[in-house]
Amino acid sequence: MSEGPAREHRLVLFASDNYAGVHPAVLAAIAAANGGFAPAYGDDDWTLALRERMREVFGEVDVFPVFNGTGGNVTALATVMSPFEAVICAETAHINVDECGAPERFAGCKLVDLPTADGKLTPELVRGAVVGLGDQHHVQPRVVSITQPTELGTVYTPAETAALAAVAHTAGLLLHVDGARLPNAAAGLDTGLREITADCGVDVLTFGGTKSGLLGGEAVVFFRRDLAERYVFVRKQGMQLASKMRFVSAQLLRLLEDDLWRETAGHANAMAQRLAAAAAAAGGVRIAYPVQANAVFVALPEAVKDRLLEDYRFYTWDEQAGVVRWMCSWQTTPDDVDRLVTALREAAAAA
Amino acid sequence: MSEGPAREHRLVLFASDNYAGVHPAVLAAIAAANGGFAPAYGDDDWTLALRERMREVFGEVDVFPVFNGTGGNVTALATVMSPFEAVICAETAHINVDECGAPERFAGCKLVDLPTADGKLTPELVRGAVVGLGDQHHVQPRVVSITQPTELGTVYTPAETAALAAVAHTAGLLLHVDGARLPNAAAGLDTGLREITADCGVDVLTFGGTKSGLLGGEAVVFFRRDLAERYVFVRKQGMQLASKMRFVSAQLLRLLEDDLWRETAGHANAMAQRLAAAAAAAGGVRIAYPVQANAVFVALPEAVKDRLLEDYRFYTWDEQAGVVRWMCSWQTTPDDVDRLVTALREAAAAA
Amino acid sequence: MSEGPAREHRLVLFASDNYAGVHPAVLAAIAAANGGFAPAYGDDDWTLALRERMREVFGEVDVFPVFNGTGGNVTALATVMSPFEAVICAETAHINVDECGAPERFAGCKLVDLPTADGKLTPELVRGAVVGLGDQHHVQPRVVSITQPTELGTVYTPAETAALAAVAHTAGLLLHVDGARLPNAAAGLDTGLREITADCGVDVLTFGGTKSGLLGGEAVVFFRRDLAERYVFVRKQGMQLASKMRFVSAQLLRLLEDDLWRETAGHANAMAQRLAAAAAAAGGVRIAYPVQANAVFVALPEAVKDRLLEDYRFYTWDEQAGVVRWMCSWQTTPDDVDRLVTALREAAAAA
Amino acid sequence: MSEGPAREHRLVLFASDNYAGVHPAVLAAIAAANGGFAPAYGDDDWTLALRERMREVFGEVDVFPVFNGTGGNVTALATVMSPFEAVICAETAHINVDECGAPERFAGCKLVDLPTADGKLTPELVRGAVVGLGDQHHVQPRVVSITQPTELGTVYTPAETAALAAVAHTAGLLLHVDGARLPNAAAGLDTGLREITADCGVDVLTFGGTKSGLLGGEAVVFFRRDLAERYVFVRKQGMQLASKMRFVSAQLLRLLEDDLWRETAGHANAMAQRLAAAAAAAGGVRIAYPVQANAVFVALPEAVKDRLLEDYRFYTWDEQAGVVRWMCSWQTTPDDVDRLVTALREAAAAA
Repeated sequence: MSEGPAREHRLVLFASDNYAGVHPAVLAAIAAANGGFAPAYGDDDWTLALRERMREVFGEVDVFPVFNGTGGNVTALATVMSPFEAVICAETAHINVDECGAPERFAGCKLVDLPTADGKLTPELVRGAVVGLGDQHHVQPRVVSITQPTELGTVYTPAETAALAAVAHTAGLLLHVDGARLPNAAAGLDTGLREITADCGVDVLTFGGTKSGLLGGEAVVFFRRDLAERYVFVRKQGMQLASKMRFVSAQLLRLLEDDLWRETAGHANAMAQRLAAAAAAAGGVRIAYPVQANAVFVALPEAVKDRLLEDYRFYTWDEQAGVVRWMCSWQTTPDDVDRLVTALREAAAAA
Repeated sequence: MSEGPAREHRLVLFASDNYAGVHPAVLAAIAAANGGFAPAYGDDDWTLALRERMREVFGEVDVFPVFNGTGGNVTALATVMSPFEAVICAETAHINVDECGAPERFAGCKLVDLPTADGKLTPELVRGAVVGLGDQHHVQPRVVSITQPTELGTVYTPAETAALAAVAHTAGLLLHVDGARLPNAAAGLDTGLREITADCGVDVLTFGGTKSGLLGGEAVVFFRRDLAERYVFVRKQGMQLASKMRFVSAQLLRLLEDDLWRETAGHANAMAQRLAAAAAAAGGVRIAYPVQANAVFVALPEAVKDRLLEDYRFYTWDEQAGVVRWMCSWQTTPDDVDRLVTALREAAAAA
Repeated sequence: MSEGPAREHRLVLFASDNYAGVHPAVLAAIAAANGGFAPAYGDDDWTLALRERMREVFGEVDVFPVFNGTGGNVTALATVMSPFEAVICAETAHINVDECGAPERFAGCKLVDLPTADGKLTPELVRGAVVGLGDQHHVQPRVVSITQPTELGTVYTPAETAALAAVAHTAGLLLHVDGARLPNAAAGLDTGLREITADCGVDVLTFGGTKSGLLGGEAVVFFRRDLAERYVFVRKQGMQLASKMRFVSAQLLRLLEDDLWRETAGHANAMAQRLAAAAAAAGGVRIAYPVQANAVFVALPEAVKDRLLEDYRFYTWDEQAGVVRWMCSWQTTPDDVDRLVTALREAAAAA
Repeated sequence: MSEGPAREHRLVLFASDNYAGVHPAVLAAIAAANGGFAPAYGDDDWTLALRERMREVFGEVDVFPVFNGTGGNVTALATVMSPFEAVICAETAHINVDECGAPERFAGCKLVDLPTADGKLTPELVRGAVVGLGDQHHVQPRVVSITQPTELGTVYTPAETAALAAVAHTAGLLLHVDGARLPNAAAGLDTGLREITADCGVDVLTFGGTKSGLLGGEAVVFFRRDLAERYVFVRKQGMQLASKMRFVSAQLLRLLEDDLWRETAGHANAMAQRLAAAAAAAGGVRIAYPVQANAVFVALPEAVKDRLLEDYRFYTWDEQAGVVRWMCSWQTTPDDVDRLVTALREAAAAA
């Protein structure tokens, strides 16, 4: 087995938001950081500036750039828990279904995954999973991990996040946010990044940049600085320490400068709204989950789906329910959306 | 603890070859790959083209881009061995001393590290470490791992590598090459990449790009394709699967196009030769290891070292022996070298 | 925190079948094995004889004594799977809820746990969990693990086990049986040990002895000998290699001699039947699951449960449903059962 | 591959001290503990009494029975360190060469193994290995682990152990003792168990019982009770939680009652002295290491060794130097020793 595509002639632009490219401003920031020699492994001016900027945004945090979301999630979790402890998460969580068991292998821990209605944990669900405390036979709950926005495109309100933090903290647990698309959540809520994290009592965050227009770069953000004390060793042992880190940091820094994230994420969200509205109006289509970020989940008749799949690549989320996922990105244009909707209408008419 | 430098006013350009920036041609290749949407996770044209190019270079290999050298080494090893098996390596090997225990944690295995004269394993050393076969109390040797060039700047000749492969294969072991600077070895030997890997019987290679002028990108190369069959799962579980992989692949592809690697690595090596020759001529300095790639290890009087450290950042390799390391890169200029040598002469005179 | 009981003055005999002692015949076998010096680590006559006896019972198996059930399960699983693979099991499985995350930590794998009606997986459930094959983001299903009898005291018929084996094998998976109480299942079905394992297509078994009257001892049994080839290394690395193994083997051997297992397990099952029948007749009590081995699960009114708990120690299985578990063992007497039933009747009358 | 001996007709009694059987008093203690039902998993009277007795012996310790030495060592280490930390140990340490990589796999950590003259670490050796502190690329030294007596039969004096504890503590490290044969060390030094552990500043101990006459049983002893707080979870996840723990505890308890350990270990040591003295007097034989416990290492001419191996099973320790190991146990008799010496003399005469 080897890398390499089955040649794809379909339009791929709604398949995932990481099919998009690099935002021009981010590419420019990379080029600007390329001025000569600079210390490796984070001991550079860009990483320093990123920390400063992150502190303006989030408050007194500690910030560590990493390569990707899986790496950020897993090293963050492994830092704040022991292997005999457990992470409580939604059944649909990326850490549970899309990381090929990386949390189990690297952190050595169990994920306690809970079925949810819409990808969102609730205080009641979490409370029901905090069991077996002190029982030596049972993994010890330690972290509640939520994805914001969820893998189903839904968004936790600040009040919802705060309620989960309260439940977690009351039980002696921590709240982790997988924020692979955190900018989309903040844009969707029309609020700031801090308002949906630090201000809600989040303890540790995987802050996503790649899906918001970076070439590649995420950051682990600790809101409790005591939790960060030994993180650098976990990052290195977790194979997430970039040597030429300035180029990761420069990207993240640019995303936070002039709130570029709000522009890219806001645009992606707007495209999702445009798509959802037009798709709903097309008839024969059901919007499966509230469209609160940049994902549109729709239930389609089999024939319509099959017709669309001839020209478009996208993922079927629930085979039985006929639900598919269309993702919008910073690079999606209104024309892209309109073309898809036209194709949808034609497919529906033909079906 | 947090990212961020103690502000550095010294010249850092000889501290490490990953303090250098991105080669302009590589940056151009990244920009060129940024044309719009493309499938993520390796299902893109650049990754396909990289595989094709790699096969031209190395023969019938399987190729998988990853983020960094540690990630490449560890996931490669974890793929070809079981946790109860062992890696035989030099005491100075990067996997042994510079990866914060990542092989042990992720692969669950033991490293059997051997003292060497110059960073290079020998058939005799390897044979002496192949012990305990079949003994249930003892880890089972499975991989011989060498670094090419070594962490001490020395280079295995093709005959030496072939001899190690023969010893390994005879004992039922595999030969892994940590090729973080493989281009420097090939340039130093004035030969090709294939001649020092596939043609010598190497089984799996971590091919380094970052130190040869990339922004960031390495590749795991399997010369025995059966070994690669399930690598994609290990890479993902090892947190090394890039979502926008096209940008990693495009860099590696550019490094192989027009043999850019020979230009960048050859230049770095030439600078090391220039530096070593001039340093040796400066008096009071001993070249500690043969300069066969882009590293220069010199034994300096304490006072000279201290004086130089006021203006230059570089690493002390052996405190007791007074040996320091100066690294040259694709970006190092003759002027840079000459300035360091001048500073060395002045420090020696003042001491 | 330290070992040591809160002094218990209640009767503990229905709390668990491992609260029972060592069967006299087993203790005699230990004493008989204590004749002088014998090779350690399995290279002794008792372990050899155990293998021979196991082959008479099960067919051409490979057999490896271990310390306990968790150790047997985890090392068995770790031998036949890679960390990026997954175990499909019931939500109630011992490996999922009672081993403190040992499978995740040692095997590095994910457990895909499925809700069941009665602790038993079905072909339909398994088929629905065999997903994501070949998808690098997703753990790869590799083992179906069932507990026989289940943690709810129910028993798979040979036809049911064979059907699961067929589903597993068709999908390229293996079937593992956690047989911590396998003798109780065989006795409950009035059949042999082979008829419910080898003859059904089971690939690997954790054969339990401790709960059937041993001091301590289980065995990992491989029905496919190719799977066993490297098990000894996993057992040692999994900390399950007994030095004075003769004493573990002698116990297991005695359990198989004259089918002692059928006597001990059959007695325990009979006590469970006696208890279930009398409890059901007592009124106000619902037998929660079919009593097919040595466990009796009953739904009790809160007041009755509380009254009983004053004199008896036993575990509440489902707080909300008011279901408690009473375990019978080889050492439980009819008098013991009758006393509990009398106490139950009195508690019901008083409530 | 399967369990089972190549039939052995040689005398095995000097091969290892775990080839011996169970001391009659220990077997009697097991039988005495078999009085009926008792809570499992340590919640029993014997485990409670063991803790009390251990506290009389060692001071305010926390005590946890486990199955075997490897399990005790690995779970103890995994409790007091993070995976990115390192254990400093002798190259010859059991954890380094005889546990099949269990520490690396379960604790995820690196062992930094140091060559020694006689199996004993020294403060100087330890100091030289405490490097890379704070360097994110480097494992962080956390534990110094010594074996007492060593694998070479030598014994640390209380002053030597205290000096190592001082070095460890000064550097922020802990001192772990692998005491698989701790009674032999104490007997050899003619002192108590506390005088060579707690009184020297040891932080955590694996206390061995199996080699002193138990059927099977060791204990992890924490001298700093804060270190023990979460050990029960590590023990369970490490597959070392005995269900019928009373039988493990009863054995350990008996070993400590009336200082039975001093009788069994003292006898073994005396047999080793007798053997060493007679062997040295036999001529042509060199005692390779000081005989300070129950092991005798002798350098033998090849022909003598081969002749002896026809009738006796024992292990060659150093093929090149011709050093073999003879172990004495609680069960070795003066006659056994004299017969071996006679055979040695005859072999020497014939050679």
